[in-house]
Amino acid sequence: MKDIYIADLANFDEGRNFDSYFLVLLKQQRTTKTNKPYLNLILGDKTGQLEGRIWDPADPRIAKDFERGDIVKARGSASRFDDRLQMKVDQLRLAQPGEADKADLLPSTTYDVAKLWSQLVGFVESFTNPELMRLLTTLLEDPALARAFREAPAAKQLHHAWLGGLLEHVVSLCTLADRVAPHYPMIDRDLLMTGVILHDIGKVRELSWEIGFEYTVEGVLLGHIQIGAALAEKTMDSLPGFPPKLKVLVLHMILSHHGKLEFGSPKLPMIPEALVLNFLDDLDAKMQAVAGEFEKSIREGKGPDELTGKVWALDQRQLLNTRRWLGEGK
Amino acid sequence: MKDIYIADLANFDEGRNFDSYFLVLLKQQRTTKTNKPYLNLILGDKTGQLEGRIWDPADPRIAKDFERGDIVKARGSASRFDDRLQMKVDQLRLAQPGEADKADLLPSTTYDVAKLWSQLVGFVESFTNPELMRLLTTLLEDPALARAFREAPAAKQLHHAWLGGLLEHVVSLCTLADRVAPHYPMIDRDLLMTGVILHDIGKVRELSWEIGFEYTVEGVLLGHIQIGAALAEKTMDSLPGFPPKLKVLVLHMILSHHGKLEFGSPKLPMIPEALVLNFLDDLDAKMQAVAGEFEKSIREGKGPDELTGKVWALDQRQLLNTRRWLGEGK
Amino acid sequence: MKDIYIADLANFDEGRNFDSYFLVLLKQQRTTKTNKPYLNLILGDKTGQLEGRIWDPADPRIAKDFERGDIVKARGSASRFDDRLQMKVDQLRLAQPGEADKADLLPSTTYDVAKLWSQLVGFVESFTNPELMRLLTTLLEDPALARAFREAPAAKQLHHAWLGGLLEHVVSLCTLADRVAPHYPMIDRDLLMTGVILHDIGKVRELSWEIGFEYTVEGVLLGHIQIGAALAEKTMDSLPGFPPKLKVLVLHMILSHHGKLEFGSPKLPMIPEALVLNFLDDLDAKMQAVAGEFEKSIREGKGPDELTGKVWALDQRQLLNTRRWLGEGK
Amino acid sequence: MKDIYIADLANFDEGRNFDSYFLVLLKQQRTTKTNKPYLNLILGDKTGQLEGRIWDPADPRIAKDFERGDIVKARGSASRFDDRLQMKVDQLRLAQPGEADKADLLPSTTYDVAKLWSQLVGFVESFTNPELMRLLTTLLEDPALARAFREAPAAKQLHHAWLGGLLEHVVSLCTLADRVAPHYPMIDRDLLMTGVILHDIGKVRELSWEIGFEYTVEGVLLGHIQIGAALAEKTMDSLPGFPPKLKVLVLHMILSHHGKLEFGSPKLPMIPEALVLNFLDDLDAKMQAVAGEFEKSIREGKGPDELTGKVWALDQRQLLNTRRWLGEGK
Amino acid sequence: MKDIYIADLANFDEGRNFDSYFLVLLKQQRTTKTNKPYLNLILGDKTGQLEGRIWDPADPRIAKDFERGDIVKARGSASRFDDRLQMKVDQLRLAQPGEADKADLLPSTTYDVAKLWSQLVGFVESFTNPELMRLLTTLLEDPALARAFREAPAAKQLHHAWLGGLLEHVVSLCTLADRVAPHYPMIDRDLLMTGVILHDIGKVRELSWEIGFEYTVEGVLLGHIQIGAALAEKTMDSLPGFPPKLKVLVLHMILSHHGKLEFGSPKLPMIPEALVLNFLDDLDAKMQAVAGEFEKSIREGKGPDELTGKVWALDQRQLLNTRRWLGEGK
Amino acid sequence: MKDIYIADLANFDEGRNFDSYFLVLLKQQRTTKTNKPYLNLILGDKTGQLEGRIWDPADPRIAKDFERGDIVKARGSASRFDDRLQMKVDQLRLAQPGEADKADLLPSTTYDVAKLWSQLVGFVESFTNPELMRLLTTLLEDPALARAFREAPAAKQLHHAWLGGLLEHVVSLCTLADRVAPHYPMIDRDLLMTGVILHDIGKVRELSWEIGFEYTVEGVLLGHIQIGAALAEKTMDSLPGFPPKLKVLVLHMILSHHGKLEFGSPKLPMIPEALVLNFLDDLDAKMQAVAGEFEKSIREGKGPDELTGKVWALDQRQLLNTRRWLGEGK
Repeated sequence: MKDIYIADLANFDEGRNFDSYFLVLLKQQRTTKTNKPYLNLILGDKTGQLEGRIWDPADPRIAKDFERGDIVKARGSASRFDDRLQMKVDQLRLAQPGEADKADLLPSTTYDVAKLWSQLVGFVESFTNPELMRLLTTLLEDPALARAFREAPAAKQLHHAWLGGLLEHVVSLCTLADRVAPHYPMIDRDLLMTGVILHDIGKVRELSWEIGFEYTVEGVLLGHIQIGAALAEKTMDSLPGFPPKLKVLVLHMILSHHGKLEFGSPKLPMIPEALVLNFLDDLDAKMQAVAGEFEKSIREGKGPDELTGKVWALDQRQLLNTRRWLGEGK
Repeated sequence: MKDIYIADLANFDEGRNFDSYFLVLLKQQRTTKTNKPYLNLILGDKTGQLEGRIWDPADPRIAKDFERGDIVKARGSASRFDDRLQMKVDQLRLAQPGEADKADLLPSTTYDVAKLWSQLVGFVESFTNPELMRLLTTLLEDPALARAFREAPAAKQLHHAWLGGLLEHVVSLCTLADRVAPHYPMIDRDLLMTGVILHDIGKVRELSWEIGFEYTVEGVLLGHIQIGAALAEKTMDSLPGFPPKLKVLVLHMILSHHGKLEFGSPKLPMIPEALVLNFLDDLDAKMQAVAGEFEKSIREGKGPDELTGKVWALDQRQLLNTRRWLGEGK
Repeated sequence: MKDIYIADLANFDEGRNFDSYFLVLLKQQRTTKTNKPYLNLILGDKTGQLEGRIWDPADPRIAKDFERGDIVKARGSASRFDDRLQMKVDQLRLAQPGEADKADLLPSTTYDVAKLWSQLVGFVESFTNPELMRLLTTLLEDPALARAFREAPAAKQLHHAWLGGLLEHVVSLCTLADRVAPHYPMIDRDLLMTGVILHDIGKVRELSWEIGFEYTVEGVLLGHIQIGAALAEKTMDSLPGFPPKLKVLVLHMILSHHGKLEFGSPKLPMIPEALVLNFLDDLDAKMQAVAGEFEKSIREGKGPDELTGKVWALDQRQLLNTRRWLGEGK
Repeated sequence: MKDIYIADLANFDEGRNFDSYFLVLLKQQRTTKTNKPYLNLILGDKTGQLEGRIWDPADPRIAKDFERGDIVKARGSASRFDDRLQMKVDQLRLAQPGEADKADLLPSTTYDVAKLWSQLVGFVESFTNPELMRLLTTLLEDPALARAFREAPAAKQLHHAWLGGLLEHVVSLCTLADRVAPHYPMIDRDLLMTGVILHDIGKVRELSWEIGFEYTVEGVLLGHIQIGAALAEKTMDSLPGFPPKLKVLVLHMILSHHGKLEFGSPKLPMIPEALVLNFLDDLDAKMQAVAGEFEKSIREGKGPDELTGKVWALDQRQLLNTRRWLGEGK
Repeated sequence: MKDIYIADLANFDEGRNFDSYFLVLLKQQRTTKTNKPYLNLILGDKTGQLEGRIWDPADPRIAKDFERGDIVKARGSASRFDDRLQMKVDQLRLAQPGEADKADLLPSTTYDVAKLWSQLVGFVESFTNPELMRLLTTLLEDPALARAFREAPAAKQLHHAWLGGLLEHVVSLCTLADRVAPHYPMIDRDLLMTGVILHDIGKVRELSWEIGFEYTVEGVLLGHIQIGAALAEKTMDSLPGFPPKLKVLVLHMILSHHGKLEFGSPKLPMIPEALVLNFLDDLDAKMQAVAGEFEKSIREGKGPDELTGKVWALDQRQLLNTRRWLGEGK
Repeated sequence: MKDIYIADLANFDEGRNFDSYFLVLLKQQRTTKTNKPYLNLILGDKTGQLEGRIWDPADPRIAKDFERGDIVKARGSASRFDDRLQMKVDQLRLAQPGEADKADLLPSTTYDVAKLWSQLVGFVESFTNPELMRLLTTLLEDPALARAFREAPAAKQLHHAWLGGLLEHVVSLCTLADRVAPHYPMIDRDLLMTGVILHDIGKVRELSWEIGFEYTVEGVLLGHIQIGAALAEKTMDSLPGFPPKLKVLVLHMILSHHGKLEFGSPKLPMIPEALVLNFLDDLDAKMQAVAGEFEKSIREGKGPDELTGKVWALDQRQLLNTRRWLGEGK
């Protein structure tokens, strides 16, 4: 297990030596102003990313054979340069198989995945519509899909992206939808829940998360909406007697969940369930972004009077943490 | 009490005589193609509006002294012209004081106003923040304001506008906010509820509802956001020791609740509570618009495969009623 | 066969009697100002549409049992009202099976469908990529799909919509793409042609053309892009060994062909072939709209100095017919 | 008094020692690449800002107890780095009370504030409307407000922001409005002038100018439009018998002066006076921006053929100085 | 001279006979519902337009030989239909040459054209820049151009369009620019005035005003900006020794005066004079639109509390007449 | 002739000495952190640009008398700094007249200009419209214009800009238009070709290409659309009997070729030829941008799975090279 994580380095003495395991996210040959070759790395673990510099690649203590995607053990010291933390790497070798835990090296959900999964299954079991229950059960019982669903991040950007992020996002949204659905009698709860569970399912193929989080070429050219709709359609086609109208409605939920054509939905929400799905998905994403920014402000030592940094999900707006400003706990 | 209402006329035999009480919403002198003067009226009751024609204003059975805003008793027959119902008025006189109930003559909420009011008061009593409770109690105990709050429509357009509409909208939103608030620990529930209760309070002066629903000149030049913020500010200034920071937050909730500058909010939501208020207000307004359109489609005899008319609140989109299409009840 | 068509009526003596076969596109019960019931019809044939009025539905010469979608024989006279032609129907009966040709009753392409089809097949036979040829051959040899492809209109609005319109549009675009492709060496001609042939294939289920041209509910909720992509995907999945990368590219061509998110494409063109497809599709649609407007101006008797009406496909711009203005033929 | 100002350093020998008084606008602990701690400062005086570096914070000639907001005396030399001037600070101590003049340390208007104020008062005295004169007199005679009005900058960004900037802007606009008003007989001159004088009054609380120019939290959450309207409303409410219609008009002038919803005005100008106020405010702001850019170009040694830098107030457009290009004086 | 004008008919007894001279703006053959041919006319005079109906074109009292563009004497009566005034024409003959004054038959400025012209010439004579004075003198002394400049309307829509409208607009703008220019020392007054005088000069060929106000084909395809720039360029090229830089500046004033690309200016204002020209042109056009709407509201009998109709030049905003609302004169 | 070009340096040993001829595009006096003066240069040749640093300007081996625009011979070594190549210049002297070929020092087309020119002339000779042939012949036979047409770049940015770029772009577009025109019978081919040849002709004065590629002041204030239209108009005016309608059409082609007001066209395409011109110009520019990005990706060593950099001409979209991804040649 790792002793020290990237996030810990913020409060670590600059210049003091340490060593730890990292995933190599980038490896580039560079040359200094005075024409000396050096290596520029990006190293990652579950708490963040760090630039690494190997000023003397010929040093025998530096392994020659490591590549992007490898797990390495590195020794060196960290310092702050232009407000970014940078590691000077003095020694580096490939980690032995089993020596480091992959789970420590990519950011992942802070929730218990098994518990999230059982919450998800619980929501499906609460369905009264047998066809929708059959659809979701079939999907969630597919071992490859279930594994991917448990692992996939919900987005590429570091910011909101972590292993298990997709599942965490879906379970949070299920809970919220379950609170809101009864307020509107015209809502078909099971259809809404089906939309919640499937809306981002295409991300299991839009993104790859082996080495950092990246878009696949398929993801770039087709997008998770199309991938997810195709996956749902193929599954419904495989279920004998699945009602054709219900199939159209489920596909419509997936297609329209971004709520606007310019956000990549080829259709706008045209049924009440799709309208609610779009609102709750949007609200939940924004509230998570705000929560993340509040935490970041605290980590960065900002005062209660200070606004957060610009929140990308809110058109670069800056927010104020109500409770802190009022002097309340947290 | 009225025997027959405007909405009933849709299924009434064309040409058969009837009489009823109406509010005169418009009275215009006109001339026919062949140069004969006639009167063009718009008559209203709580179920809708109806064009009226008096082809012979000189007829002694037609009162001379009625004006816009008067309650009249009219007799005649109805027919459909270009898909709009029109009444040919044969007799018309001013109603005696007490003869007709004003409540029958303007559309009003189908809920029990006293019960809505006690729900609202109940939400205020559930507050744990004494300052916000004091603010709302002071406002709701102001007799003139309380009366206006119980009567005011939530909007001018016929569509969503009825007496008690503001209160109905606010109570529905309180219920929804109460369901959603616990999902987000960073939300200050009492501040959110305060925003819900006060966000549209300026409508009590932006609109008039004596004769139909109109904007006041003050409403046109200042808007309900400014009127409401001024009302809240004056009240908070009158409460000794009201915390200045809380005052700023309450005003910010009102100012930002439209969520976008182009919708007339001079500030965007910059605290989590304002963000949630904007989302829930928007969702609730849209869901009510959809519910209204579904009812209208049924009244108009549309089939379950047919889309609704264009929904103004949803950028002229047309919707499909999921439950009807699937052949379920309702 | 019909003797007289709706378009002929423009130059027909108003008031003179005639009879002809029509498709009933709409049938509504209405009431006159003086409370007499009458029937309002919309009658269509391949040259256009016409409002019909039956002022005395009880007349024994008027059949009782006809409905929307029936073919009828009607007798009466036409006149112009507010610049729209209207038919007063004096007699009407259901047509006998075989008495009228359905092909005369809906607008259809002026080209020979068999010839268009063989042009299309010829383009496919010119492919050098065996996989794409196999994909298209499989699709075009499916009898149900081939029939629908030959019949489907390219759009709902009367304007550009006629039976065979989809095929006509696709063949025109094939010809144009075949001219342009050699200008750009980086273009994979067969992939471009595949995109041209499949881009609107989903319209065979987005639209129905039994009685007039309408959107299906599936079409409204999913759209022809999604329907077409699903059809192509299912077919490619059924071909053993179809290359996965090629599958992604074909789907991308379909998904991105509208060229902008706000036009309903969930992905923007990201390969050169998709870029060219979007340009040529857009150009061809606009040039057809312009040609149609020029013909309409001539039919309406506009002078060579006069602009066309507002062209919807060109943001309501009005155009000038260069050749006519210069006094050249046509 | 200061001997040397930041703007003078542009023509000062790099590396030559000097000392001067500065306001500390920012103080940050940093570490060099080689892990040595240093201090990063932003120092300001009335002519601009300057980065300062203290490479050896432990040096006994460097005071330990200074903070952001303090006035200090610093000694060192300046040099240019990446086109920005930077000061290497060798000695630094807190200034004694009275040793330095605060007025030298923040940018301030080049006009005589007392004279600007008497011009403003003169405009008010020229009013013929006694109510509006009473309103403005009351406001301008409030000592705290009058002081803030004389001191406040008109904006935060360095660019157009200086002590007295608000007053300078308002007096310039009064003069311009006084020229334009007589051209339009329908304009109520006194109402227009009232709008001119009050439109930005909320900036006295939206901004703080003790240490540099910053937005207050109140300013961020409410904005100067709301703050100014509330201030005007409270004052009008305190004047017995102030006409209610006039109150609405004055508030409307303030609310609508940005001219567009997306610029933060909750109402668009709906009276002629508000329309003119918006135009003149916009024109005057842009002309001041242009004049500032022309001066900057001359200071930077640009030739008469060269365009200015990108002007933020003109959508990043670049301008040409007509007179210089034509070879005329100035 | 005409005895009665179209605007007078609003207060004329419906059905009473009158006769007057009109310009025939449109003549169309139509057929009634009962298949009788009739003539539909649009008749104009300097106060407005009027629909005319000739129900019996065969009547010997109706001339056969009149066409669009002719001056006719017509007799009949007027009545109101759907709020539009309509004339039933009983007799109609061609006017004899000299019998009617063309000036009575198209709307024209209420100012004295000779006086406006001499004001314009006066502004040119006040120039200190000899080159610009020479340019404008050359243009204004061209007899054909000077005549067109005195006659041309400033726009096509009836609303702001009248003979002499261009000259009236330009002189108003000269006066305004003359007031504003001294406020900004960096402004070259003569260049600004040149821009004011020439900015719309292309309208003399963009519009035709022989029979009503129409766009020419040249006007539609090139626009008044291009036509005006070409006219100015040709004139400057004809003046020996005209300074090339001044030529570029004059052309830039014309090209950029609409202020935005989306308003048809191919260049944005990039010199201070162009910026001021755009602002003043825009302000003056809007103020004239507002003044026109206020007059229209009074003519239509609206009360002082009522907003104007939607003002096209102000994005369909409605305005309030400050002075009337406050109960002041006018 | 030069031995080594800037593009070659990417694969040159860092630190190894070389010498070559360059055009000086920029020369700036700067000072190091430690207060030592140095010279910052931008050096160009036909393959690109390079930053140069002269750390010791006083060195006798460094000429004192060179300026921006001079051709120099420089000796030194190159290294990579922050991914940009930088040259340390040790010796530098002015080149002797004739010693270096100017054609080697600015980027220029890879096509044979004489051949491009004869292709262009060939297109003109193929015209059947004698007037348009006369217009183009007159223009192309003007020696000064013809020289400029052969030399001018098509744009300022390095990216697509090279000597002869305008001619190369026009000839490519002629070829494409010649392929597309026959597909649309309503197109007047000669008018379309005239538009193709003249649409960007104003660039010969909008840009200067003596020292790098820059906008002229005339270009900035008037733009190539206006300059080109004026040039075409003057030429047509000089041809006796040139048909006025044809003149309007030719000018309209130039004015409208950007296709949108917001792209600087003062008129939208309103004739079919202008519509086609705008489409083909846009398509060709984008396809060239894509081809350039594909080449750049290969030069940068990107893999076939990697997207290109963000393409400015395609709204910062990234593209995939179909052929490379499929593993085909190229």
